[in-house]
Amino acid sequence: MSRIYLDHNATTPLRPEAREAMIAAMDLCGNPSSVHAEGRAAKALIERARAQVAAAFGADGADIVFTSGSTEGAALALAGRGLHGSAVEHDAVRSWITEDLIADASGRIDVVDPEASTLQLANSETGIVQTLPAGLAVTDATQAFGKLPVAFNWLGAQMALISAHKLGGPKGVGAVVMKRGTDLAAQIKGGGQEMGRRSGTENVIGIAGFGAAAEAAARDLANGVWEQVKEFRNILEMALEAGSKSTIFIGKEQDRLPNTLCFATPGWKGETQVMQMDLAGFAVSAGSACSSGKVRASAVLTAMGFDEVTAASAIRVSLGPSTTEENVLRFAEAWLEKEKKHRARAA
Amino acid sequence: MSRIYLDHNATTPLRPEAREAMIAAMDLCGNPSSVHAEGRAAKALIERARAQVAAAFGADGADIVFTSGSTEGAALALAGRGLHGSAVEHDAVRSWITEDLIADASGRIDVVDPEASTLQLANSETGIVQTLPAGLAVTDATQAFGKLPVAFNWLGAQMALISAHKLGGPKGVGAVVMKRGTDLAAQIKGGGQEMGRRSGTENVIGIAGFGAAAEAAARDLANGVWEQVKEFRNILEMALEAGSKSTIFIGKEQDRLPNTLCFATPGWKGETQVMQMDLAGFAVSAGSACSSGKVRASAVLTAMGFDEVTAASAIRVSLGPSTTEENVLRFAEAWLEKEKKHRARAA
Repeated sequence: MSRIYLDHNATTPLRPEAREAMIAAMDLCGNPSSVHAEGRAAKALIERARAQVAAAFGADGADIVFTSGSTEGAALALAGRGLHGSAVEHDAVRSWITEDLIADASGRIDVVDPEASTLQLANSETGIVQTLPAGLAVTDATQAFGKLPVAFNWLGAQMALISAHKLGGPKGVGAVVMKRGTDLAAQIKGGGQEMGRRSGTENVIGIAGFGAAAEAAARDLANGVWEQVKEFRNILEMALEAGSKSTIFIGKEQDRLPNTLCFATPGWKGETQVMQMDLAGFAVSAGSACSSGKVRASAVLTAMGFDEVTAASAIRVSLGPSTTEENVLRFAEAWLEKEKKHRARAA
Repeated sequence: MSRIYLDHNATTPLRPEAREAMIAAMDLCGNPSSVHAEGRAAKALIERARAQVAAAFGADGADIVFTSGSTEGAALALAGRGLHGSAVEHDAVRSWITEDLIADASGRIDVVDPEASTLQLANSETGIVQTLPAGLAVTDATQAFGKLPVAFNWLGAQMALISAHKLGGPKGVGAVVMKRGTDLAAQIKGGGQEMGRRSGTENVIGIAGFGAAAEAAARDLANGVWEQVKEFRNILEMALEAGSKSTIFIGKEQDRLPNTLCFATPGWKGETQVMQMDLAGFAVSAGSACSSGKVRASAVLTAMGFDEVTAASAIRVSLGPSTTEENVLRFAEAWLEKEKKHRARAA
């Protein structure tokens, strides 16, 4: 029986459009900084991708600086600024902030000084969506871009972090999007690429894939693909809720990403659940999939006021555009069976 | 008539082995940090590539930290350290050093305090190869790796910068190689990937391509492919020398990369030559192809004592494994024809 992948917030399969664009880009041999025909062709490919990302992210007229992903983007946008932020942010953002903003029980963050703060648009673990205050310095839009109808030009943030591999592009490519002319000190210096904001020969193949994936993701959004995903997520939630009385569904009453379901079953460790479900043929996760082998209670859930035991017993199921109703029903059946066994052992 | 690409030091075409490995990697959907089967498969691919790079670079037992290229690698290895270095280094290195080491007329650098210095292994513009002093802190091996038989474990340097796209891998991937356990502060922080030295979801497809390209490059080296390249480079040099009396061949008496030819024709601007040759169907460069549209006299040549006029009249022709004798003879013929016209106009 083939495996069922339900960890799309960790990373999502490469879209066919991205694959095709990347394979086509493999035939270009020029360095985008070279002035000869081969160099200009490579440069043109990057500028095409930049336009595709701008259109998909509603960022026409904004500056888009390609990076190796949102983690580098966070360093570029945040290092040395000491912006205010909270513990629900991704570790890549938490590395650079003054962590003094507090989440309420619903996971929402009250930003006091937007121009000196950063706030994610959607949480990777819970899917909870924040309302951004006008004038916000930086938003991490990594999880939202491609899953929610978002337009940078209407977000009110000065800068946004985005990543290709969360929307069907390749891993290792992302961008910092910023209002035109924003002052930004380069972290990676040298040849002066990306208007001096990020040096280094560009990841031409990856950037081509990002552009194509962003375009395809925007088309999916416009076609209502994520409405369908949301329906399947809700079917899954109802099935689990009907079968397990002790399970807590996090963010259920909140505005959430359409594909994300985070739930805790106190006393049954999330990492155990992930391993049991992996053996049963399902890929899901406990917390954010961002540091090799790290096992600890979710900082996101403890920030929302959940105790350690509950936070350590949460798992995340995240659907993708390719997920079917049968996929989620099979997951529900398998998980509920394990949960029943867990209860029998614990009793 | 098809174009002839002679700018392999700027970047070189993707090797078939790299292309194949990258396309195969496109089918893996996991995040290497995820603990489930899909994640472990992606992780295994990265570790395989790491072993391939280690073997090709003679770095068994060393730590290899994948980056987005040598420019990021330079920031990682050099930022905040104020190492001594010289003006013949690449801009990515020059951004972080105390530039107080002096090149002599042959382009060679005398390092006074190796443990507090950085020195490139081979120069991108002239191809001149340096002898590294024992105990050197950092060497930029970007241009040497894949063209010269180099073993990190015998170089005597604590760290080395390498890049995939100079040896037939994709652009946007590289590594910092270091003696095991070297203390290194991360510049890009977050999830703790690459043993905490470089966070961010890995460029799985690109890294797979780097591994395959490194392996293929090492095989080419062992098979004497670069001996053949050197022969063609020498044929080109002799042809140009026979036809143009006023042209200076830089580094001719020095130990040089086998594929690189740098020559100056005082009074005839390098950028003009590059454009004329581009129109004639040849891709070559003036200086290093690392910042979009930058036009200035080569800092490498002025550091070697050449005057501004001479330095501004240099171009670089760099051959690759696919370059044929006919390619270089056609270039020589075309260039000498232009040079003759230039002299006629100047007279």
